[in-house]
Amino acid sequence: MPRFITLEGIDGCGKSTQAKLLAEDLERAGYDVLLLREPGGVTISEKIRELLLDPAHAAMSDTCELLLYEAARAQLVHEVVAPALAQGRIVVCDRFYDSTTAYQGYANGMDLGAVQRANALAVGACHPDLTLVFDIDPAKAAARAAARDRAQDRMEAKGLAYQERVAAGFRAIAAAESERVRLVDASRGIDAIHADVRALVLGQ
Amino acid sequence: MPRFITLEGIDGCGKSTQAKLLAEDLERAGYDVLLLREPGGVTISEKIRELLLDPAHAAMSDTCELLLYEAARAQLVHEVVAPALAQGRIVVCDRFYDSTTAYQGYANGMDLGAVQRANALAVGACHPDLTLVFDIDPAKAAARAAARDRAQDRMEAKGLAYQERVAAGFRAIAAAESERVRLVDASRGIDAIHADVRALVLGQ
Repeated sequence: MPRFITLEGIDGCGKSTQAKLLAEDLERAGYDVLLLREPGGVTISEKIRELLLDPAHAAMSDTCELLLYEAARAQLVHEVVAPALAQGRIVVCDRFYDSTTAYQGYANGMDLGAVQRANALAVGACHPDLTLVFDIDPAKAAARAAARDRAQDRMEAKGLAYQERVAAGFRAIAAAESERVRLVDASRGIDAIHADVRALVLGQ
Repeated sequence: MPRFITLEGIDGCGKSTQAKLLAEDLERAGYDVLLLREPGGVTISEKIRELLLDPAHAAMSDTCELLLYEAARAQLVHEVVAPALAQGRIVVCDRFYDSTTAYQGYANGMDLGAVQRANALAVGACHPDLTLVFDIDPAKAAARAAARDRAQDRMEAKGLAYQERVAAGFRAIAAAESERVRLVDASRGIDAIHADVRALVLGQ
């Protein structure tokens, strides 16, 4: 049974909904579950998240952005993830370091080795046991996100071609780390996706 | 003639005063000078600085702190330092990556290799040509800082033993990189220190 489970994918792929459903499943199965989201989750990391997602910060360099994501992650791991795992809880996290590899590495074109070293520095010994990548056509995901009718943040404002590079990055990560990372077809309805998630996490 | 000059040392060593005097010297000598301070210097980096120096953030992990300093530095380099150097300006910066090596590496005990890789990621090709370390007994520096009568920030609140580890770290950096980094005896008066700085930078 995986103890640290991360959910990944482009905006609008449905991972936040699936994270909540999975956390409920695990609680019903008797586990003590902690549901988190990245970037954010603790006070300092939420403040870093505000800096990252503020559309006024369009001048932010790729390197600054990478390091802010890693800083928020380091604090979340330090304050919450590592202590929870040490107490035997199950941690379900909506985005983790594979998002940084997909967005900053594959989509922004930063050196993948540098991104992975930054990931490693931020998390220390706290690596996910299982990562689910919710794979969906970016045009379909964009339609879903638009239906939620909320203001576009800085990341979503980058457009469809950008989201396609991110989605391809997530697929490349799943191919490179097939033991840890599993692709889920997220183009279907919530229940069908949820059934796949249950099978991958709980084996039922 | 060095184009990118950084001034380093513990709080209260007098480097900010010396940075202003040096910038004035260089301007009188006909150079186009940009005087900066770290962390900060541009909008995004100033916001990161606020997070770093807020005493309410005592729960901040060493790794988060390191990555925030590097994020602020990456943005300053991207927006200001690299463009200014490319235009032929002289950049004088009050603190730069040697502060991270001294505080996060030597004083906080983080792995020096990891700190130096993070420094390298943040600055890219933008390394200082000359670094002046203002060396002073931490007890004397603390008395100076107290005389300025301002609220202690999170860093200064760490106490004298901590400042002694930082000062030793700066001396170790100067010993390890003696070509780039020069120690200045900062226990003297402003004019005597300034004369040394002029000699090291302008050769007069």
